[in-house]
Amino acid sequence: MEELPPQPAMKSNLDLINECDAFPYYQTDPEVYLQHISTYYHFQIANSSSTLGYVLPSVAEVLRGLSSWTLDDDTRTLTLDSGSTAEERSAIIAATCEAMRKIDHFRVLRGWRNELYPVYAAGGELLFSIERAASSLFGIVTYGVHMTAFVRGKEAGALKIWVPRRARNKQTYGGMLDNTVAGGISTGEATFESLVREAAEEASLPEELVRREARACGCVTYFYIRDARAGGETGLLQPECEYIYDLELDEDVVPRPGDSEVEEFYLWTVQEVQEAMARGEFKPNCAMVLLDFFMRHGILTCENEKDYVEIVARLHRRLEFPTH
Amino acid sequence: MEELPPQPAMKSNLDLINECDAFPYYQTDPEVYLQHISTYYHFQIANSSSTLGYVLPSVAEVLRGLSSWTLDDDTRTLTLDSGSTAEERSAIIAATCEAMRKIDHFRVLRGWRNELYPVYAAGGELLFSIERAASSLFGIVTYGVHMTAFVRGKEAGALKIWVPRRARNKQTYGGMLDNTVAGGISTGEATFESLVREAAEEASLPEELVRREARACGCVTYFYIRDARAGGETGLLQPECEYIYDLELDEDVVPRPGDSEVEEFYLWTVQEVQEAMARGEFKPNCAMVLLDFFMRHGILTCENEKDYVEIVARLHRRLEFPTH
Repeated sequence: MEELPPQPAMKSNLDLINECDAFPYYQTDPEVYLQHISTYYHFQIANSSSTLGYVLPSVAEVLRGLSSWTLDDDTRTLTLDSGSTAEERSAIIAATCEAMRKIDHFRVLRGWRNELYPVYAAGGELLFSIERAASSLFGIVTYGVHMTAFVRGKEAGALKIWVPRRARNKQTYGGMLDNTVAGGISTGEATFESLVREAAEEASLPEELVRREARACGCVTYFYIRDARAGGETGLLQPECEYIYDLELDEDVVPRPGDSEVEEFYLWTVQEVQEAMARGEFKPNCAMVLLDFFMRHGILTCENEKDYVEIVARLHRRLEFPTH
Repeated sequence: MEELPPQPAMKSNLDLINECDAFPYYQTDPEVYLQHISTYYHFQIANSSSTLGYVLPSVAEVLRGLSSWTLDDDTRTLTLDSGSTAEERSAIIAATCEAMRKIDHFRVLRGWRNELYPVYAAGGELLFSIERAASSLFGIVTYGVHMTAFVRGKEAGALKIWVPRRARNKQTYGGMLDNTVAGGISTGEATFESLVREAAEEASLPEELVRREARACGCVTYFYIRDARAGGETGLLQPECEYIYDLELDEDVVPRPGDSEVEEFYLWTVQEVQEAMARGEFKPNCAMVLLDFFMRHGILTCENEKDYVEIVARLHRRLEFPTH
């Protein structure tokens, strides 16, 4: 009898959460949490005690001795100590990032996007902007929009979800499955406008349809530790906040790739989506967004998911950094 | 000109969150959190390092020297050190609670319910059951079901919510507004069965309708510190997990009080509900459930709610205790 090849281990929903919300929690693992925290430098700006992100020592060392930056090994802080406005701080950080890019020390900076991400103070004030590719070097919170487009179907259990496959040649998570529409929010872009733009660019969804039918459904927050699939250095810290939208579509509306980011769209049953999730085929944060969708739509329940309460909490992490 | 009486301060949505999820967070307030934690005794059972709840010193002192209980002032632990099965532990705790009730030292025990609440280990094993009225003395996690029944209406923005007013003579939160259906889950009762039972008892909703149309939508978790409205001692710690359901009703289905718990039902617009919330008329955890409803239904958005990200995270707290 022919021997079957070993089957890859199927991931539980909690496994999928653990992959994306990987940073330890004080309330459940105080020792591990404190061990992590004491390893990093706390990124701050002058005259504020808020920590904006955690920075790996291997990154902080590169900034040691640079003008405008102070590395304090006793307080474990990395402080941007020049600049009193968002413009001034952004200019200094841009110069620093450009210099880091030139020495080609960090592989993540090879993915330079010429796109600025905002960093906020508690209360929502814009503190500065920073090149998207450099955000994980400083460990700052980044923001995005993720939308799940679905067709309800006529009978209970007939719900189907539009699932795109990322282009195989994409720098990050190439060939993996994604949410119907997803993208980062740049400085100055309103959240909903970002969604409308991405829906047109990535999925060719008409602007008026998205404006009329997309429904805000909360946000998913987690604390990711970058692995090899993200490209560049591993271990960089990436706390994220994704604003979540649902879009119910009629069967005759078909998303189509509008740019080179997406290879094709599939219309899959919930079971097909869940099987692909269990095989690890989804980009990690997109699996989180689908778990949130399944929670809100009664697909996962406390009867069929043993880790129900933990999963709901882990999808909505309270981050230790100021959020918008 | 006649002077108007001073208007009561209107509560923001974050104020409503702060009232219910009142226990500090390590990740945002480490000093305050640790100060709180070091005040309490950690409730444990023998041969397990899991903390099941936080106990006020004024409660723990009453158990000092009792057989089956060990109070350790160095480790700040209160340990149930007898009993090796759920039945044995439940029997000891029942005897302890009965003794505490007899001395009439704790006012919360005057609300004795003859109803048992379950306490679980990590992984879901039932460790023991405890009289409902005593749960906040031991600070254990309690579980409930909360359902929002609503009528969608024909136009956008026409959604209305069924809101009951609690009987004025109810021991706890008398006369306050509530979720359409809400109740605690006793030991041995399945979550969905608990919902079906409460929906019939409190709102006279037909069983077959609830079974067919109620949709699981996640859970809301928070860490409440009891205030005067809860009845009995203040400052008792009450971490809670409420399983959330939505029920869309046709306009001709009218919930009616089925027992003495509810005075009457109102069918209110979202604006009417939000105004009553801002006036502080809802039971605190019911305001949380409505905020979750508003988040999931696109009523609150990041455009109209400045504390959007924090509110979503605070509605889904990761508790430091094992949950079911």
